[in-house]
Amino acid sequence: MRIAIDVMGGDHAPKAHIAGAMAAVRSFKDIEFTLIGDETEILKHLSDKKQMTILHTTEMIADDDTPTKAVRKKKDSSMVLAVREVKEGRADACISSGNTGALMTAGLLHIGRIPGIERPSLAPMLPTIGGEGFLLLDVGANMDAKASHLLQNAIMGSIYMEKVKKMDRPRVGLVNVGTEEGKGNELTKQAHQLLSAAPINYIGSVETRGLLEGGCDVVVCDGFSGNLLLKSIEGTAKTIFSLLKQEMNSSLTNKLAAGVLRSSFKNIGEKMNYVHYGGAALFGLKAPVIKAHGSSDHIAIFHAIRQARQMVEEDVTSVIQKEVQQQEESQ
Amino acid sequence: MRIAIDVMGGDHAPKAHIAGAMAAVRSFKDIEFTLIGDETEILKHLSDKKQMTILHTTEMIADDDTPTKAVRKKKDSSMVLAVREVKEGRADACISSGNTGALMTAGLLHIGRIPGIERPSLAPMLPTIGGEGFLLLDVGANMDAKASHLLQNAIMGSIYMEKVKKMDRPRVGLVNVGTEEGKGNELTKQAHQLLSAAPINYIGSVETRGLLEGGCDVVVCDGFSGNLLLKSIEGTAKTIFSLLKQEMNSSLTNKLAAGVLRSSFKNIGEKMNYVHYGGAALFGLKAPVIKAHGSSDHIAIFHAIRQARQMVEEDVTSVIQKEVQQQEESQ
Repeated sequence: MRIAIDVMGGDHAPKAHIAGAMAAVRSFKDIEFTLIGDETEILKHLSDKKQMTILHTTEMIADDDTPTKAVRKKKDSSMVLAVREVKEGRADACISSGNTGALMTAGLLHIGRIPGIERPSLAPMLPTIGGEGFLLLDVGANMDAKASHLLQNAIMGSIYMEKVKKMDRPRVGLVNVGTEEGKGNELTKQAHQLLSAAPINYIGSVETRGLLEGGCDVVVCDGFSGNLLLKSIEGTAKTIFSLLKQEMNSSLTNKLAAGVLRSSFKNIGEKMNYVHYGGAALFGLKAPVIKAHGSSDHIAIFHAIRQARQMVEEDVTSVIQKEVQQQEESQ
Repeated sequence: MRIAIDVMGGDHAPKAHIAGAMAAVRSFKDIEFTLIGDETEILKHLSDKKQMTILHTTEMIADDDTPTKAVRKKKDSSMVLAVREVKEGRADACISSGNTGALMTAGLLHIGRIPGIERPSLAPMLPTIGGEGFLLLDVGANMDAKASHLLQNAIMGSIYMEKVKKMDRPRVGLVNVGTEEGKGNELTKQAHQLLSAAPINYIGSVETRGLLEGGCDVVVCDGFSGNLLLKSIEGTAKTIFSLLKQEMNSSLTNKLAAGVLRSSFKNIGEKMNYVHYGGAALFGLKAPVIKAHGSSDHIAIFHAIRQARQMVEEDVTSVIQKEVQQQEESQ
């Protein structure tokens, strides 16, 4: 298989992307890479060209570019070229850690939706204390979701967890304000009905308080709520870690004690670091498009590659398409 | 003034409530309390009866009772009696740490909305690293909010922060998925227009990632989003603290080092402990109704009392009513 990587977006580009791809080459003999970006920059970091092809461009989409405008105007940007590699059949999947909105726009515009899918969905894996993690969808592809979109999220998420994470009957939860029947807004009330009747392992409404404790494998919500949720988990963790750091540095005694606990703090940081669970997949498109976190290091990129590889190998796209068709026919 | 306290709901009832009220008597000479609950139980903890009246009842609303049904059927419950004390003019404000839904229902049913307020709003103070905190509204009174409700939330929140927290021109932010113009769902796009034109210090959209870092004094959103947000902040903090505890107990060396850092960990816990910022006020009703957290200890109850007292003293209800009328007339 071939995976196209936009090496120009993100905080540690292109170094992290190239190191991640080289690590993937060492682990997986079946991937060829197309690295898309400034060739001179790429060559600085590419110490091993095995299974690598470079597609040179200097144009890039910035984080503060307006997505639709950028995708339309910057036709030679590394991101648009990566997506076009997939569209035109030269690659099976693509990865970018650039502007999220632009990647969603480019994916939708060039690769297009799976027939029957009403709206694509952006889905990262989030951490749980047990280390299994859960898939959260949607975190921002579809702001004003309908109940039928939430149903499709649940189906797509279940398939992903079954095929890629090799999970048997993944537990699907609906983000809600309480677990009792009748709780929620109009959207969740309607979605609850649809999910209850769907061929998935729906366990009902879940509150956001216990998500990181585990118990749910696929967590569905509208893109607005998912985005708030993702960022509030991230922000709260970041705030607590910065308070910890501040306290640890507040005296010499504290510094010494903190030195002893260094590996413990690191363990916790690692557990909460969801970039190591892979990137956010853009579900509902005709081919896997992975949005790696903007702060991705080479390990995060490696995991995003592994994830894309698994999605291609298991042909997640076709399985989703078949399941959605069956759903339509059964209605 | 007189404050009615439902002493039957919450994890530490009635002990925390009575201790909190006695502490308040020592600080504030101008409050008389009506303690509502089982007299025998109350007398066990009430070592000083100064400024205290007991209203005896044994009926109570449980956490898992259905709000509307419970409020209608359990007419002699401590919570309904507390609300009726306010309704019938025998108290100026009431406090409960029981079933949130039931308190909102009882408040709406018996005390009623301020004329001109479309929907009441439940608003806790959340912590910030600097210690100022911010008011988040709504966290669950109004699930399917309209833009005009968000505008009223912003106005009510601004008045509260000005009058009760003595803040000059409190900064109002709109919970959103990004800070750029045009971001969000239909609701936030409409609300952004209304807020921009309102007589408040609106600073625009805010992402949930940075909320705990400060920068915003009043944060507005619909009740569904606010509820998710509140619980995800709570849940993330709880998870990280439990991971910390686990790591600290994982070896003797860690235990010793953690012992040195005990007061530091406590500092962080205190900073994140939003119950010490007071309870969640139910805004938009004709009198202050405070929902103290279910896990409130005597300090949290004391702060909820202080908050209720301040709301009565500053006549927040009348100020909101006047402001809402002016808004209506100007349209």
